[in-house]
Amino acid sequence: MLNKLRVVMVNTTHSGNIGAAARAMKNMGLSRLVLVDPIACIDEEAIQRSSRADDILHNAEIFPTLEEAIAGCGLVVGTSARSRSVPWPLMTPRQCGDRVAQAAVADNDIALVFGRESRGLTNEELHLCNAHVHIPTNETFSSLNVAQAIQVMAYEMRLALTQTDTDESTQRWGVDWDYPMATHEQLNGMLQHMEQTLVEIGFLDPNTPKQLMTRLRRLYQRAAPDRMEVNILRGMLAAVQRTASSNDNAHNKQGEQD
Amino acid sequence: MLNKLRVVMVNTTHSGNIGAAARAMKNMGLSRLVLVDPIACIDEEAIQRSSRADDILHNAEIFPTLEEAIAGCGLVVGTSARSRSVPWPLMTPRQCGDRVAQAAVADNDIALVFGRESRGLTNEELHLCNAHVHIPTNETFSSLNVAQAIQVMAYEMRLALTQTDTDESTQRWGVDWDYPMATHEQLNGMLQHMEQTLVEIGFLDPNTPKQLMTRLRRLYQRAAPDRMEVNILRGMLAAVQRTASSNDNAHNKQGEQD
Repeated sequence: MLNKLRVVMVNTTHSGNIGAAARAMKNMGLSRLVLVDPIACIDEEAIQRSSRADDILHNAEIFPTLEEAIAGCGLVVGTSARSRSVPWPLMTPRQCGDRVAQAAVADNDIALVFGRESRGLTNEELHLCNAHVHIPTNETFSSLNVAQAIQVMAYEMRLALTQTDTDESTQRWGVDWDYPMATHEQLNGMLQHMEQTLVEIGFLDPNTPKQLMTRLRRLYQRAAPDRMEVNILRGMLAAVQRTASSNDNAHNKQGEQD
Repeated sequence: MLNKLRVVMVNTTHSGNIGAAARAMKNMGLSRLVLVDPIACIDEEAIQRSSRADDILHNAEIFPTLEEAIAGCGLVVGTSARSRSVPWPLMTPRQCGDRVAQAAVADNDIALVFGRESRGLTNEELHLCNAHVHIPTNETFSSLNVAQAIQVMAYEMRLALTQTDTDESTQRWGVDWDYPMATHEQLNGMLQHMEQTLVEIGFLDPNTPKQLMTRLRRLYQRAAPDRMEVNILRGMLAAVQRTASSNDNAHNKQGEQD
């Protein structure tokens, strides 16, 4: 669905920004770049800054007016830093992602329109848009570089249009973990082993346990160890127990001989 | 809360990227930039690309090592494009925003670590992190420019940290926690103590350490222990060491008497 989206840059002054925009687009899986009456051309700096996204630069379409650039689009969203005299529907980038996803599912072409480095889009251009999007910024330093604005928007569009990236359940510790999570019983067994061991080395007094085991339980449950990690911890505990028991034996032997 | 965050750039090669990073940070309300062993310096191009965010450049801190750059941090997140031999907790940028918000609410310092333009962070550097974050990208063109990666992350951090404190995500882990998170150095000190103790009880062979300490480091960094928890763990380790040393003494005494 990302192919339903075009990125429209209006009157861009710096070729490096066009190149950086192409790279940001390609990173996020967008490919269609449209330039409206560009002041910069696609030169060496653009190609260098695109970092091998020059296919997007070479395929960029150029139109003299915004109207031509957005022809055929069912949804046109303009980026805007300023609030306007006539208020327009205004979305956050995330809301824009939802809206764009709805439009793309319904097979609409969609344009995201970005203005000049110096002063953004004109009121007339903004009035050609279905809605505006405002990237939240520091109020005292609010002017994003245009390629950075395209990066943020392309990132949100990718999230909205590719479902796997938003499936949080598979992302908790990452999809490619090497061992399965320890079960509750396995973790519990380790904690009992730990408690026993701490008593044996005299660190835990079973008569005044305080909150020691509660805090240790919280720590390890929070980490949600995998089975290998539980095995390592139990191996450590067994080694501590051997040390303690060899200690007792030595003391006992010593006692016998005293 | 944005002032609890530092952006750490490791071995950056291009001064323009440092400048663009400073602008992206300031746009999103971040101000603390830390450079680890930078190859580029803060030159004219950096200042030009920063577009009046040169205050951030002039205040940038420079350290020879990542460890020094993340000193004092309760949460360290490294950006990673690759999957690793030992998998580490992996978050999306949005999940990272939640986690950072929790840590910031609880008054912890936080580092977001970004690697070299050419090859990101080393495994050793990534292993110093509590968790990794992966910005979702086009699989066939996945390498983001470092300033663009900082833009996306700073944007997500701004969204997460400027939400009201009544938001559910900030209530989960940070707000009412009883102790501050251990700093990176405190956790590192505990891990060194653990390594030493495991050698003393014969569980870790320093000549064939395999991945034992890497797995333990991952486990404890993932849990991001608070200071009380680190104190408890160190207390346990000291008790194990006393047991082992008393064992040695007993054996020695026994030897003397044999």
